Amino acid sequence: MTSAPREPRRNRDAQILEAAVQIFSEKGYAAASLQDVADAVGLLKGSLYHYISSKESLLHRIFLEAHEQARQLMDELDALQLPPDEHLRQWARRLTVFYLENPERASLYFSEWRHLTGDELAEVQKQRQEFASYFFGILNRAKKDGLARKDLDVKLATFYLMAAINGVLIWYRRGGSMSASRIADQVASLSVAATLLPRGAS
Amino acid sequence: MTSAPREPRRNRDAQILEAAVQIFSEKGYAAASLQDVADAVGLLKGSLYHYISSKESLLHRIFLEAHEQARQLMDELDALQLPPDEHLRQWARRLTVFYLENPERASLYFSEWRHLTGDELAEVQKQRQEFASYFFGILNRAKKDGLARKDLDVKLATFYLMAAINGVLIWYRRGGSMSASRIADQVASLSVAATLLPRGAS
Repeated sequence: MTSAPREPRRNRDAQILEAAVQIFSEKGYAAASLQDVADAVGLLKGSLYHYISSKESLLHRIFLEAHEQARQLMDELDALQLPPDEHLRQWARRLTVFYLENPERASLYFSEWRHLTGDELAEVQKQRQEFASYFFGILNRAKKDGLARKDLDVKLATFYLMAAINGVLIWYRRGGSMSASRIADQVASLSVAATLLPRGAS
Repeated sequence: MTSAPREPRRNRDAQILEAAVQIFSEKGYAAASLQDVADAVGLLKGSLYHYISSKESLLHRIFLEAHEQARQLMDELDALQLPPDEHLRQWARRLTVFYLENPERASLYFSEWRHLTGDELAEVQKQRQEFASYFFGILNRAKKDGLARKDLDVKLATFYLMAAINGVLIWYRRGGSMSASRIADQVASLSVAATLLPRGAS
């Protein structure tokens, strides 16, 4: 067991979060313990409480950080002011790349959020809603601009695309033969073709 | 607690399976007990062992039955000898309807199969493979017939569509405003548009 008393708090915080992501992913949140996390970062369990107040608060912080990253993707994309079809393609593409680069973190977000309670649960549910609304907004604008397939139900299509893109987390295995970039291109093409008219057909 | 000694064994079997589907869905397989199942069908736990040998065997039988039903969908569809585009549309449509009619059973299949072990796990994994191969086969034939979008990666598209259609189980809530038939039509249209060329464009 190592001790690093002069290590900046921020680095220690990041180490603890990263260790928790790995351990919650491997064991499942319910089966994992704070002792596992303490062992992984070389702290006594008592010392871990200088950084976090409970296992649930650790899960909550992982989710906050994941949402912050997704929020950043949305903000970067909004700043580009793309037309809706290109907006959808880039969103599907960048979200897929994000998932492929952070598979444990993103999978935890979708599989373990039910373990939160109270205010922390309410906050994460609000963030999930914000995420779905972002998808919905892109498709809705495409429809208003006459770029969507004529029979498209925007709400249902939002759910469909979210499940399809989040599905990358289920079937992707690191070390597969296809590059992240090629996977992301394919996922983006499938998502655009599913919902929008072919270019020039509107 | 009722006893029904003359009730045909087959009916009792079906009741036990149906009760197990409900209980495993509500509590999760890990937290559910055979006592819960026995209580639900009005049997003593000891009597339940006339019908099943263990909790795991009960889960296995639920999966076998779900796969049988999926297998029947595939066989019915194959008998129609449809062209690949219509084959894909009908498969996506019928599979969605099946999910909407059997949400607990189908969700268990996807969420709890990891609880099986040994031969029973191997059998279910083989069936999952068979299910994926059916999807793959339809898309592969469409590609060979020149009906698929030019850049389509058939294997990746198979995973994408499976996640998208299975996603119905996550977001569908009984009692929503959209009919099962309309949901299935939309899911089928999204799946065909994602992967195949517009009609007349090939």
